[in-house]
Amino acid sequence: MRRAVILLSGGLDSAVCLAKASKEGRSTCCITFNYGQKHETEIESAQKLARVFNAERHMVFNIDLNRIGGSSLLDDSPVPVNRDMDRGEIPSTYVPARNTIFLSIALGWAEVLGAHEIWTGVNEVDTSGYPDTRPEFIQAFEKMALLATKMTSAGDGMRIVAPLKGMDKGGIVGLGKQLGLDFSLTWSCYNPQPGGRVCGICDSCRLRARGFDKAGVSDPLASTFEKKETCRQ
Amino acid sequence: MRRAVILLSGGLDSAVCLAKASKEGRSTCCITFNYGQKHETEIESAQKLARVFNAERHMVFNIDLNRIGGSSLLDDSPVPVNRDMDRGEIPSTYVPARNTIFLSIALGWAEVLGAHEIWTGVNEVDTSGYPDTRPEFIQAFEKMALLATKMTSAGDGMRIVAPLKGMDKGGIVGLGKQLGLDFSLTWSCYNPQPGGRVCGICDSCRLRARGFDKAGVSDPLASTFEKKETCRQ
Repeated sequence: MRRAVILLSGGLDSAVCLAKASKEGRSTCCITFNYGQKHETEIESAQKLARVFNAERHMVFNIDLNRIGGSSLLDDSPVPVNRDMDRGEIPSTYVPARNTIFLSIALGWAEVLGAHEIWTGVNEVDTSGYPDTRPEFIQAFEKMALLATKMTSAGDGMRIVAPLKGMDKGGIVGLGKQLGLDFSLTWSCYNPQPGGRVCGICDSCRLRARGFDKAGVSDPLASTFEKKETCRQ
Repeated sequence: MRRAVILLSGGLDSAVCLAKASKEGRSTCCITFNYGQKHETEIESAQKLARVFNAERHMVFNIDLNRIGGSSLLDDSPVPVNRDMDRGEIPSTYVPARNTIFLSIALGWAEVLGAHEIWTGVNEVDTSGYPDTRPEFIQAFEKMALLATKMTSAGDGMRIVAPLKGMDKGGIVGLGKQLGLDFSLTWSCYNPQPGGRVCGICDSCRLRARGFDKAGVSDPLASTFEKKETCRQ
């Protein structure tokens, strides 16, 4: 079985990416970053997902990106809400060089594991232009990776696989459904509520809801928000 | 004053690199990685160097590369000695994707600081082919970096400056001398001895000694070893 390192945040996209890698017969070595993100709950989701998909390994890697800062996903900034998702601006949730850093660490691990593929759930359509989710970035990273390690400089290949490239959130939800992904195991909300509920109003909840709507699929996590709303009435 | 991020390990090469950046009028923001290396002493050296060169900032960033492994500089492997330095093999001290990881984190910090240069002391001549010290790697990293961040994708530049590229250890010592670097502030030994002494026999001590010999400069740290030898007789 071919080994692949999977960047697994515990969110929707990386879960679909893991489901696809498993379906395609990879032995999956998942890496999840505990980087100081507001929504640490996603790390628990990653752990559940790695178990459900029988990952060969799962490593939670600590790296404190708060030391660098520059993002509303870090430090004490308010949880990002009310972003105009169709405006095409890079949102405040952008974390400087995050994918470059995560892919680099995955590259080191891939070398030690003898894996020649790193899978990532990046997709640029709905993120309104996080620079490090674009296909040209992924391509440039791959080129650099081929020169960066003992393994690759000896001529062994390294592919950065981005199976969700070019898809929108609706398409990703549809693919997840087709792959039989249990969406209740994933986590997107930036602002986890007591009792494992989602807030339903942060940018990430709204982007997720839009994806499920588009795909005509019902989100098992959305109901935790709806219940709360019902109680309020 | 132009800001530059400097990768500062505390070793000879990065110290010369910092000296050169200062000499060339950069306001220096130094970053040192505490990554689980055997010779943590080098971090103290980095702190002294940053002070002496009036760095604008100095960040010691913790990242546990032992989680990834794959190097005799990490974990409980014996300290590397007796390497044939002229054989052209990649030595066991190679750390998977180390420079890629360090440059990536520096890239994130550079963006937050608004710095458009990252300086690194990499040089490939005496390392016998660490893949991530070669000019073609540095070039590929720079290309990738231009696509990786909000700042660079908006058209602002990012240069990876490697002023020691193509130099051997003798040349680096010579340049350090010319720049007035106090070599006693640097650290190279993998196997620090009590009382701040160097071991004198590890691969790094031997490589350093060869550089000082070639340059015809006396190494203030070597005397700590010679004294020990004298006592033994």
